[in-house]
Amino acid sequence: MLKKYQSLVNQSIPITQYMGWSIENLKPMQITTFTPLKPNINIHGTGFAGSIYTAAMATGWTLLKNWCDSLNFAAELVAAQANICYLLPVANDFYCHAEINQDSAQYSKLKRRLANNNSCSYTLPIEVMCELKVCATLDIKFVFKCKGS
Amino acid sequence: MLKKYQSLVNQSIPITQYMGWSIENLKPMQITTFTPLKPNINIHGTGFAGSIYTAAMATGWTLLKNWCDSLNFAAELVAAQANICYLLPVANDFYCHAEINQDSAQYSKLKRRLANNNSCSYTLPIEVMCELKVCATLDIKFVFKCKGS
Repeated sequence: MLKKYQSLVNQSIPITQYMGWSIENLKPMQITTFTPLKPNINIHGTGFAGSIYTAAMATGWTLLKNWCDSLNFAAELVAAQANICYLLPVANDFYCHAEINQDSAQYSKLKRRLANNNSCSYTLPIEVMCELKVCATLDIKFVFKCKGS
Repeated sequence: MLKKYQSLVNQSIPITQYMGWSIENLKPMQITTFTPLKPNINIHGTGFAGSIYTAAMATGWTLLKNWCDSLNFAAELVAAQANICYLLPVANDFYCHAEINQDSAQYSKLKRRLANNNSCSYTLPIEVMCELKVCATLDIKFVFKCKGS
């Protein structure tokens, strides 16, 4: 499962390969990814804001794509809107972590709508961790687009 | 001026080189950059959300860095928070455009604070254009960090 999505993302989104972005752990409801600092530095020698966003965004996309596929929903997954907060400099290799909250109202709605082949949005929070500290948080709204809806 | 900042960004932020990001036009108060689609595609063959964010963010950073240098302010420029809206798929090579609004209250405040060597934030809107349409908008808050403030 992990290798399948690693290949899918790296082959279809080539910038993730340049970045060295890789999946550490992928379960139906959670994901952790790893990104090395070196190809992703900025002028200060720390993590570049664009790379941090991209690593977190790809992490969220992969989690929701895997979830969608595992339930056999036929939907295209696209980013609609996002908000990122940079809390601390990323001074080393970093990890992104996200979980789908099964107890949330938006999760119930998402499952119900996709089961009826209706498009639906879902907002996922993603944490960027470096040296055991949360260095950035991304809240990203994806849309699951169903054909004909 | 353009070449100086092109080299600065490409050399200090290597991912911008992989992306093919380049400055088309740079003036003290405005900037336009170009990004080719090919290295920045997603699974749908359109512009990857991470690359779109990164191109726009680098565009904003370059404009403010050039502005800051041109006025001889000694400040480090870092991203603090950002919001991006994806409006249309990016189906081809794309441009990012940003302007500093000299008539705004936040601009007056920024100049006043930096002249007194005090750190200050500035929120810049950036448009992502493809085939003459606005495909995404980024609002990004940067902080000009002055030493000892």
